[in-house]
Amino acid sequence: MASSSSSSSSSSSTGKKPLRLAIIGSGNWGSAIARIAGNNLLQYPDLFIEEVRMYVHQEEIDGEKLTDIINTRHENVKYLPGIKLPDNVKAVDSAEEAARDADLLIFVLPHQFIESVCKSLKGKVAKNARAISMIKGVEVKNGKIRIFADVIEEILGCKCAALSGANIANEVAEDKFSETTIGYRPGDLATAERFLKVFDTPTFRVGLVEDVAGVSLCGALKNVVAIAAGFTDGLGWGSNAKAAVMRIGLMEMKRFAEEFFEGVKPETFTETSAGIADLITTCYGGRNRKCAEAFVTTGKPFDVLERELLNGQKLQGTETAKEVYEFLKARGKQDEYPLFRSVYSIAYQGGEVVNLTSRL
Amino acid sequence: MASSSSSSSSSSSTGKKPLRLAIIGSGNWGSAIARIAGNNLLQYPDLFIEEVRMYVHQEEIDGEKLTDIINTRHENVKYLPGIKLPDNVKAVDSAEEAARDADLLIFVLPHQFIESVCKSLKGKVAKNARAISMIKGVEVKNGKIRIFADVIEEILGCKCAALSGANIANEVAEDKFSETTIGYRPGDLATAERFLKVFDTPTFRVGLVEDVAGVSLCGALKNVVAIAAGFTDGLGWGSNAKAAVMRIGLMEMKRFAEEFFEGVKPETFTETSAGIADLITTCYGGRNRKCAEAFVTTGKPFDVLERELLNGQKLQGTETAKEVYEFLKARGKQDEYPLFRSVYSIAYQGGEVVNLTSRL
Repeated sequence: MASSSSSSSSSSSTGKKPLRLAIIGSGNWGSAIARIAGNNLLQYPDLFIEEVRMYVHQEEIDGEKLTDIINTRHENVKYLPGIKLPDNVKAVDSAEEAARDADLLIFVLPHQFIESVCKSLKGKVAKNARAISMIKGVEVKNGKIRIFADVIEEILGCKCAALSGANIANEVAEDKFSETTIGYRPGDLATAERFLKVFDTPTFRVGLVEDVAGVSLCGALKNVVAIAAGFTDGLGWGSNAKAAVMRIGLMEMKRFAEEFFEGVKPETFTETSAGIADLITTCYGGRNRKCAEAFVTTGKPFDVLERELLNGQKLQGTETAKEVYEFLKARGKQDEYPLFRSVYSIAYQGGEVVNLTSRL
Repeated sequence: MASSSSSSSSSSSTGKKPLRLAIIGSGNWGSAIARIAGNNLLQYPDLFIEEVRMYVHQEEIDGEKLTDIINTRHENVKYLPGIKLPDNVKAVDSAEEAARDADLLIFVLPHQFIESVCKSLKGKVAKNARAISMIKGVEVKNGKIRIFADVIEEILGCKCAALSGANIANEVAEDKFSETTIGYRPGDLATAERFLKVFDTPTFRVGLVEDVAGVSLCGALKNVVAIAAGFTDGLGWGSNAKAAVMRIGLMEMKRFAEEFFEGVKPETFTETSAGIADLITTCYGGRNRKCAEAFVTTGKPFDVLERELLNGQKLQGTETAKEVYEFLKARGKQDEYPLFRSVYSIAYQGGEVVNLTSRL
């Protein structure tokens, strides 16, 4: 129903206090999401405080602070140039300030910063706050594997959902048709529905699934499969082989998740945007595929290709392949995931790329 | 165990009569499959009669009969040039002669010939013969929908399996890595395992699923989704949109099969080569995708594009979209399959292609 009050910060006609949203991170994907969230919050003045605080790692662009640029020109000129951000997105250069009293937190930082940033926010977010992780990758440490939603939840003590999908950031920023998937904790559909309001638009369709681990693992493991798909491209093996490797890879992703995580749903992998759809975009576009193809056609090792093609940035697919292999090896299970094993062997042990499918 | 007899036509050491295999059809895909089957049968002299009879629709190439060319030069110069067929594949110009006393029949004909050819074979195949259909498409007649395995089974009175997968024929013929799926009738795993021996090689991996309808429908309905995927290419909507349309299309394929066919397994669509893998190859390569892209970029109707791009051959995707739409409309269910409906509306009713995703 329509609200009797136009104020966005006062308590609403529903009698509930409107929620404060914070975005922790402001790269390419964070900025694309900030645009959607900022616009969407204006639709629900009863539910949300209008202002969205976005944490921006401060840097200077031509002598001007990036936060000042974003707050005056409403554009992240460094990470999402050419796209207008809504006026209610407010850039701040402190994660603590961005997150202060926030009820809903969106984490969209590079994974290496998650732990330290979360520790700095501990005790500063609202009571009963909820978080959502848009972070790709997994943490493998001391022989254990964790998704970043678990890392966030453990440090902050608030439930953490996950969002992933076939979401090339610039296409989302340009309102090209897209879908995404939110994975939520068992029984916590209410949080997923709140985040759905933050994100869903006619061209950015949000699906929900009660499976945080599945959604997170899709985002991490797809990059390993994309390396294998890139190898088939480099070998010139054609469409059948590439589709076969993608299918086998998807089945290994699903099996791995079901074996090592609680409550994973198979359909997260085979039916959602986070699963099969994101695998498709990643295996046809994307840097992992591209570097793996170049690995075969140029014969250069991955560290050289990272320097030449990615300005030294690390490839997620090979890194994840290594972490997953070490995790599996510690359990004597590496042979049960032959595609993951082949990618590791080719990338790190001098394995012959033509043997990619020999054990599948 | 090793056989005590090297004869391929006498009864074997297992005490069972070896089986005669016939291939009904010899186009691009039929010839690629004949090559594999011919080679594989030599591995199992106990199980199979060495000779594989292949029905070839007779035609003259430079004054020579195609059957004579195949039987002397062991190459189908018209439909699979450059590929050597095994010597034990024998081309015959009569379907009845090819099928005479056959225990295993492979149907790989254009669908419009199935009914009349099957009728001509009635009563001529071996008792307890088994068939397998490699025919794409569905038959919609008098408001009913049937897969061709059912048509074959009904006319010949012998159980019919189905084979489909991400199988571009030339790649299979060149031994590039590939997978395929055999769908078999409930309880008839034995037949599937016989056909597996006929087809499986280290580079052509056969998976089995107890679901003839699912496998057949994957091969038919993927072409409708490929039309939609081609539209997104033509519109320049990018990778997210294309992956979203493919995912939504796959879900409609699965739902359609489950609603209108008995015993369909969802995983046939989401986990097998016939399902998700073939959808990927078809939506990235293939004539349906290509013509749909041209439909958007040139503004020409499909019948013109068929003349210009396919020498007048009909596109399977638009034909199947029409058949499926008419079938659904007769049941008042067309709105429950919005992607199928959109493809029909755009291809046949002047629907705006930019509205492709508006109802999804």
